Amino acid sequence: MEDYHKPDQQTLQALRNIANRLRINSIKATTAAGTGHPTSCCSVAEIMSVLFFHTMKYRPEDPRNPNNDRFIMSKGHAAPILYAVWAEAGYLKESELLNLRRIDSILEGHPVPKQQFVDVATGSLGQGLGAACGMAYTGKYFDKSSYRVYCLLGDGEMSEGAVWEAMSFASYYQLDNLVAILDINRLGQSDPAPLQHHMEKYQKRCESFGWHSVVVDGHSVEELCKALSQPRHQPTAIICKTIKGKGIPAAEDKMGWHGKALPKDMMDSVVRDLQTRLQQTSKQLYPALPKEDTPPVSLRNMRMPSAPSYQPGDKIATRKAYGMALAKLGRYNERVIALDGDTKNSTFSEIFKNEHPNRYIECYIAEQNMVSVAVGCATRDRNVVFAATFATFFSRAYDQIRMAAISESNINLCGSHCGVSIGEDGPSQMGLEDLAMFRAIPTATIFYPSDGVSCEKAVELAANTKGVCFIRTSRPEHTILYNNNEDFHVGQAKVVYKTNDDHVTVIGAGVTLHEALTAAEILKRERINIRVIDPFTIKPLDSKTIIDNARATRGRILTVEDHYYEGGLGEAVCSAVVNESGFVVHRLAVAHVPRSGKPHELLKIFGIDHDAIAQAVRKMLSTSHNDHRTT
Amino acid sequence: MEDYHKPDQQTLQALRNIANRLRINSIKATTAAGTGHPTSCCSVAEIMSVLFFHTMKYRPEDPRNPNNDRFIMSKGHAAPILYAVWAEAGYLKESELLNLRRIDSILEGHPVPKQQFVDVATGSLGQGLGAACGMAYTGKYFDKSSYRVYCLLGDGEMSEGAVWEAMSFASYYQLDNLVAILDINRLGQSDPAPLQHHMEKYQKRCESFGWHSVVVDGHSVEELCKALSQPRHQPTAIICKTIKGKGIPAAEDKMGWHGKALPKDMMDSVVRDLQTRLQQTSKQLYPALPKEDTPPVSLRNMRMPSAPSYQPGDKIATRKAYGMALAKLGRYNERVIALDGDTKNSTFSEIFKNEHPNRYIECYIAEQNMVSVAVGCATRDRNVVFAATFATFFSRAYDQIRMAAISESNINLCGSHCGVSIGEDGPSQMGLEDLAMFRAIPTATIFYPSDGVSCEKAVELAANTKGVCFIRTSRPEHTILYNNNEDFHVGQAKVVYKTNDDHVTVIGAGVTLHEALTAAEILKRERINIRVIDPFTIKPLDSKTIIDNARATRGRILTVEDHYYEGGLGEAVCSAVVNESGFVVHRLAVAHVPRSGKPHELLKIFGIDHDAIAQAVRKMLSTSHNDHRTT
Repeated sequence: MEDYHKPDQQTLQALRNIANRLRINSIKATTAAGTGHPTSCCSVAEIMSVLFFHTMKYRPEDPRNPNNDRFIMSKGHAAPILYAVWAEAGYLKESELLNLRRIDSILEGHPVPKQQFVDVATGSLGQGLGAACGMAYTGKYFDKSSYRVYCLLGDGEMSEGAVWEAMSFASYYQLDNLVAILDINRLGQSDPAPLQHHMEKYQKRCESFGWHSVVVDGHSVEELCKALSQPRHQPTAIICKTIKGKGIPAAEDKMGWHGKALPKDMMDSVVRDLQTRLQQTSKQLYPALPKEDTPPVSLRNMRMPSAPSYQPGDKIATRKAYGMALAKLGRYNERVIALDGDTKNSTFSEIFKNEHPNRYIECYIAEQNMVSVAVGCATRDRNVVFAATFATFFSRAYDQIRMAAISESNINLCGSHCGVSIGEDGPSQMGLEDLAMFRAIPTATIFYPSDGVSCEKAVELAANTKGVCFIRTSRPEHTILYNNNEDFHVGQAKVVYKTNDDHVTVIGAGVTLHEALTAAEILKRERINIRVIDPFTIKPLDSKTIIDNARATRGRILTVEDHYYEGGLGEAVCSAVVNESGFVVHRLAVAHVPRSGKPHELLKIFGIDHDAIAQAVRKMLSTSHNDHRTT
Repeated sequence: MEDYHKPDQQTLQALRNIANRLRINSIKATTAAGTGHPTSCCSVAEIMSVLFFHTMKYRPEDPRNPNNDRFIMSKGHAAPILYAVWAEAGYLKESELLNLRRIDSILEGHPVPKQQFVDVATGSLGQGLGAACGMAYTGKYFDKSSYRVYCLLGDGEMSEGAVWEAMSFASYYQLDNLVAILDINRLGQSDPAPLQHHMEKYQKRCESFGWHSVVVDGHSVEELCKALSQPRHQPTAIICKTIKGKGIPAAEDKMGWHGKALPKDMMDSVVRDLQTRLQQTSKQLYPALPKEDTPPVSLRNMRMPSAPSYQPGDKIATRKAYGMALAKLGRYNERVIALDGDTKNSTFSEIFKNEHPNRYIECYIAEQNMVSVAVGCATRDRNVVFAATFATFFSRAYDQIRMAAISESNINLCGSHCGVSIGEDGPSQMGLEDLAMFRAIPTATIFYPSDGVSCEKAVELAANTKGVCFIRTSRPEHTILYNNNEDFHVGQAKVVYKTNDDHVTVIGAGVTLHEALTAAEILKRERINIRVIDPFTIKPLDSKTIIDNARATRGRILTVEDHYYEGGLGEAVCSAVVNESGFVVHRLAVAHVPRSGKPHELLKIFGIDHDAIAQAVRKMLSTSHNDHRTT
């Protein structure tokens, strides 16, 4: 790191001019839209000016260049000033700024990655720093490159715990290429932020979390230039005392102006005033170009070089098969990385870690940050990321997962310990809402493998599938169902048991698929044949295979799942077949909050074991004699 | 607060004896179960002994007595030692401890409130302190009572951001009746916790978050007694340096022992060794009785004294109707309280705040903690709690909501700004997965009011409904649909538009119900009559009204919702009618991640506005002539 050279007066004035032009464009855009957050833009004008025209190194014509420094606008509602910066840098036309928030513009209300200069969507507060951590970790440890990562946060979002998870992560991994800029403008949406302008409190908190911290006047381009040029051996927080609405006299440091565009006449006078502050300089500022030292990477065609190698009769838990498959995938694809939240000996991420220690990131018990780090690592197609914890603990990060979809992120999440079949640990550890949760993510693909072979295939497919992939794994061991050469595809179910004269189509997955196979044996002795289907992916669901097979069983379908009734396999099947004539769907699932007990006891009392399946089949057959639907 | 009197030697020895008996019982119970976390119990044996037999004031025969000091075991996997404490206190039989984790025992793997001495379920880490904050806030500001709140946390869970949200909340509200005890035993599940035994780092973090903090030897009953007796004017953190597995020589401070019961022979020798440490004392310790100064409270029959008072033709957004209804409810029921996360001017919680400032808790931008505080405030039936933020930001707290169900908590959550109809702010602010999320909560009731009258009724009903109630409110203003005297019930839909010759039953809610009514007018001009149903509650869904009315429209149902396709209204309806003969369900919902734009533009391009409804109805009628189901 070079010593700090104080910028000359011309440069400083040019930076001030840029800051005020950013203000002008943010104000004009929000007034044109009639909606938006001009006062939240105005507090960061000098910060944005210095960052983009003095500190950061990037190619303004190629925002996603892998060598560029990264910038994350964690306080996403200040989007207009981000757009103004890219207009100032020449990437956007200034006139385009006036299309802010319009239905036909890419300049949405909050940053989204349809804008080339946005890597992760923001707007749900407190998530930017975690993604920044993933980018900085990638830069330092995987890419081993010069690019740095800058994240701008608001003071309101400092109340989000996810920020402190990220603070902790960054210092633990000594991310000295990461800079957080805190815009302490005192005012939140409906009240002052709890720490108001107590800069020393922010500083104490940041320092206690292991960050180098500097307090500056956030409206002094000189102080900002200096603070952003200090050599660092730790992640650095630049804590900026700012005024919300700075440059809009009537709104400066005033409550009641959050998220309000200026009326046209007010805008005119404010813009006129700001224009008078622009002073002629001889200096035209251009961003410095980045060092071209980021290695090329290709994430295409992440293939396993060999088929699975399970033996017939082998028993393995899919959670373990996940760990083994991931380690294998990692053997042949060096940008495959794995994350876990201190559950690696339960999810079996540790198999990957043991084989590829340098590509494993321990995220500790901070699932929100783990998902954000995963998203960060996956930006600009630098890594194929797999993150694992108990399925139910992904509920901790549902907002981050939701935002990952908006970010068009390609991340793979593996949730182990699904359902009551985990046994004695009890309901707090049981994933019973995870299918509902992930099905409602629009970019999600949900794998629910039922044996080692299909789990290995799920891992391989997930690595090659865009969007958020979720792999649901189970704790109990189950026998191998498939031949090692069996071909698996997203959205393609398997008929795992059939005869020429089946009476009911039973659809199960994971533990309930094995229970269904046991039920098939029981029923066979009673001369009742059932067909058993493994959906393999719950989303997309293979409606065709289900409907075709159910037709062969006179439309009788029984679904059975280790999940709550709502939003899971059963409802997915209901939605798929609701318009099929003459179909009858019966569903077995977990009806209420479960409890501790042995797995087989819980499967029994929650009515999803082989006996419950056999009984449900018998009941369907007995009632169908006098068509139950005509009651 | 009295000065600290050092306990006599007999008392100290008695406390040490209790600690070792707690160890013995924790070890025996987990070995009997063959599963559990004995080493996580052993690190806190002295802490539990001192807390329950020296510090805390409570009636051991009446664990839920409102005057008792509260205790929350945030590190829920140490449940066996909590059970051992209550056996030591005489509330449980010692022999019952050996039924740990059995299917027929209340002593589950993690604490649940079927145990009278548990107020909130734990087991998902990092949630206890937030609930403790709610209890302490209630004690200090609502009950104005002497009881204190003690929360025991593990070091692993200190990585959870939710802990730091709670730390911030507690100091902001000066909860000097709150004590956090941190069990720094160095080891997590699969790795050492990131800060290992760096006690000074924990202390710096706690102090920077505004807590009084003391570091002690967590195995010294004397140091613990002293630290727990210090006068406080702030929340206090007792940061205890402990040894994981203390008392089990082979496991002390060793990796690889997390969550492992001791084999029988190992248990025998460890227990024998621990028994030799028990020394005869003349002292028998009993907990001190609490001061009886907690006011009686009744939460039954939270009624509005008058009907709603909307005028026909009034227009109001349901989000505003929520705020008005809540303020009204609060006028007549003094234990109604409201929480918000710095969105009160958007959710309209501010109407309640303005009228009842002393019963409003500003939680700032920390939704996880807000939900935990809500759960804490609702314990022991002290308050009727309503907490609001944008619907989609409850995804931030999904794990807390899931645990609220396991806690059997009665909380009411209001999520505003649902769907694309919020407009320009874009997808990060749109609740499009909230119905899926709450439907998969087993104790949930979901209200989705479509006008001011039904919203007021929803608030009143929620206050009287057990479990987790969710009220989904909308941003746009809509006309009043119902008479002020209309009667509403959970699970009872309303037919809002009908003729004697309807061809399709359309089910909408919120903005889409109003779009359906507009579509009805459009279609009427084409001589196509439709029936329009307002489900009022999405869970439970009024299947009977839907089926009965759909039969009158030859089984034709069209659902339309401002939500993603999965897990919402449409799927709920599919599940309800799948076995009805001759029914056809068509669904309109949001198919992918939306964008910014004006509300009506977004309703249009995502195909859920009146034109889309009218078009879908026409299509259903044209295809049904030649039965589309026989393709």
